[in-house]
Amino acid sequence: MFNSKEIEKIRSKFPILKKKILGQKIVYLDNSSTTQKPIFLIRSINNYYLNYNSNINRINYYLSNKTNLLIEKSRIFISKFINAKYSSEIIFTKGTTESINLISRTLKFKKNDEIVISGLEHHSNILPWQILRNENSIKLRVIKLNNKFNITLDMLTKYINKNTKLVSITHISNVFGTILPIELIVKYLRSYNPNIIILLDSAQSIAHIPIDVQKLDVDFLVFSAHKIYGPTGLGILYGKKYILESMDKYQVGGNMVKDVKINRTLYLSIPNKFEAGTPNISSIISFYSVLKYIKYLDLNKIYTYEKKLLEYTKKLFLNNKKIIVYSKNDTNSTSIMSFNIKKINNFDIGCLLNNYAIFVRTGYQCAQPLFQMLKINNGCVRISFGLYNKKEEIDKLYNTLKKIIKEYS
Amino acid sequence: MFNSKEIEKIRSKFPILKKKILGQKIVYLDNSSTTQKPIFLIRSINNYYLNYNSNINRINYYLSNKTNLLIEKSRIFISKFINAKYSSEIIFTKGTTESINLISRTLKFKKNDEIVISGLEHHSNILPWQILRNENSIKLRVIKLNNKFNITLDMLTKYINKNTKLVSITHISNVFGTILPIELIVKYLRSYNPNIIILLDSAQSIAHIPIDVQKLDVDFLVFSAHKIYGPTGLGILYGKKYILESMDKYQVGGNMVKDVKINRTLYLSIPNKFEAGTPNISSIISFYSVLKYIKYLDLNKIYTYEKKLLEYTKKLFLNNKKIIVYSKNDTNSTSIMSFNIKKINNFDIGCLLNNYAIFVRTGYQCAQPLFQMLKINNGCVRISFGLYNKKEEIDKLYNTLKKIIKEYS
Repeated sequence: MFNSKEIEKIRSKFPILKKKILGQKIVYLDNSSTTQKPIFLIRSINNYYLNYNSNINRINYYLSNKTNLLIEKSRIFISKFINAKYSSEIIFTKGTTESINLISRTLKFKKNDEIVISGLEHHSNILPWQILRNENSIKLRVIKLNNKFNITLDMLTKYINKNTKLVSITHISNVFGTILPIELIVKYLRSYNPNIIILLDSAQSIAHIPIDVQKLDVDFLVFSAHKIYGPTGLGILYGKKYILESMDKYQVGGNMVKDVKINRTLYLSIPNKFEAGTPNISSIISFYSVLKYIKYLDLNKIYTYEKKLLEYTKKLFLNNKKIIVYSKNDTNSTSIMSFNIKKINNFDIGCLLNNYAIFVRTGYQCAQPLFQMLKINNGCVRISFGLYNKKEEIDKLYNTLKKIIKEYS
Repeated sequence: MFNSKEIEKIRSKFPILKKKILGQKIVYLDNSSTTQKPIFLIRSINNYYLNYNSNINRINYYLSNKTNLLIEKSRIFISKFINAKYSSEIIFTKGTTESINLISRTLKFKKNDEIVISGLEHHSNILPWQILRNENSIKLRVIKLNNKFNITLDMLTKYINKNTKLVSITHISNVFGTILPIELIVKYLRSYNPNIIILLDSAQSIAHIPIDVQKLDVDFLVFSAHKIYGPTGLGILYGKKYILESMDKYQVGGNMVKDVKINRTLYLSIPNKFEAGTPNISSIISFYSVLKYIKYLDLNKIYTYEKKLLEYTKKLFLNNKKIIVYSKNDTNSTSIMSFNIKKINNFDIGCLLNNYAIFVRTGYQCAQPLFQMLKINNGCVRISFGLYNKKEEIDKLYNTLKKIIKEYS
């Protein structure tokens, strides 16, 4: 938990939060889309480009050695951040979407295999499996939701059978902030059939809940740096060593080969095996500075703080009869809340809030099937927290919404 | 052509060139691996993260609108930089390697199709085709080189027949700097069979030769931003509109869909079709500032300047009998030269030059089959220019090499 003095100190590290637009300080509540960046990150990118910019691997000079070292320092820090057993289990990709596509293309599926996802998934955790289904007569099964916008273990078990090859689910819903019972799910799946592969989409949880992949015992965990205060263009794919080793290559090119002949190629082992071409060096190196800061702040504290802020928000919103809140009081959720206002289109609400420099996401939030399942037309308004958001901002949002309701409803 | 005053002005825009290591100014001659970055680029990245960092697409607020606009501004500028007909022909990838992998996975090949590459290719333009060959009984043919480390039209014609589906070649050899006769090759292929697809790997040419894709009439052109003074983690894939439209999707996820249902998905058209997930926003936006500068400097002038610098270098090196230079006087090449010193391992030369803050690449330069073809063991030393390199640096390199030869040969 942070007190308001600590929050102000945190805020001071994020220069954009001081920015005014139309004379008003910005209230940034679209952190599930992307988070704002601390000054450390910006300094670290500058430092790379100003002082040791160079390419990596088998290049024997000062700048390149330094670049290599910093890339691997980052990889090691990330592996510790999520408590991976080996740093070689950390693969750099361009984002969560690429990570899931990589897995979908390199795991070996056979006819009649079944893939299970939840009804809460983002398009990036639906479409790669939909494509596999269309190509390979694999079955894709979608777990329905209960009235708390979540799945329970009882519900999940109905979708699991001897053909289940992969369960790929989100840790936190990007629309409702619902926290899925991943510990229970993994425990059940491991006892049902230890060969079922479990992929956890951590895009929405990595910045909001402490993660320990060994304790969670998932086979894959994927997230994007830009959603945890890091740079754009960088995804992290964690996979258990023996599974990554058993998988096929994905993209091929330089930086991943032992020996190349026109007739055959010998490839390097993980992590290089999955990292063809020049990586996103500045993003990988600078991401370290951000994770170091988050570790120092402590994700347990961040979780408690954001959870309290969400409770405060829910209380305000649930008391207003003009607002339909898609999170009940007893929903196990964090950092995200979605709503609609009766008789006003959610897109318009976004535009109207923008006039007050309040920034929220509207529409289907890249999760159209979820809205179809719940029969909610046209999507909703989503607010999503970063660790720098505070009560005063929620008050401003709520008071502005009341004005909007008065004027337009 | 630039005079020495103009070169000093250019150099002043690249802060790293002022850096000293071990008391000596750095001499950076590994620009084919990656180029150094101008201050504009660094400022532009900072500006994005400090002032309007946000995600893109269907988000209706100030920051995101601005981000969207700047992404498309960049796309339009890139399309004009290479004279593409439509900005939608510009696809953002993570690098040249991903671009070639994307093409290899989304073009439709059938049994007996033939793919022709040159003997000069980088691993990234060999391995994707090697994999296709192994999977699909496609034939992969490699054009041999003449004694000028180049291919001629006469040589190429022997590899072309009615089964030729794709010719994928580099514009400039990343080892020898050889400029391939792409205009002649395209002209011949178009008259032989207009359906042959032509992919030009421009990774080594984009920063060194003016490119006009309409005039060249290639079907694909690929390059990486970081090799033309731009940020890491960004590749540009140009493709002719009708071909891109006929190709299958590659990765799937958010930002590329019209309508998603669990049973079927409607996808957006190009460029979105190939851009699943959150793009590398900071790199795309900041790349604009670099290309604007290069356009202002004029690639014709850069080409002339670097060509002169290479001639100067060749003259020095070819006069020394202890040095084996892999570029003859009459080789049509630019910006790159490779050599070995008799009786000294090339890796050791790299290490020794590093002691004088001179940075070069050694080894196989990600082109092992080329060295096998030419029967050169252990690779070579490569020097590769950026537009900021100058005679004084070549002199320092040459004089240092003479010292090394004296001491170790």
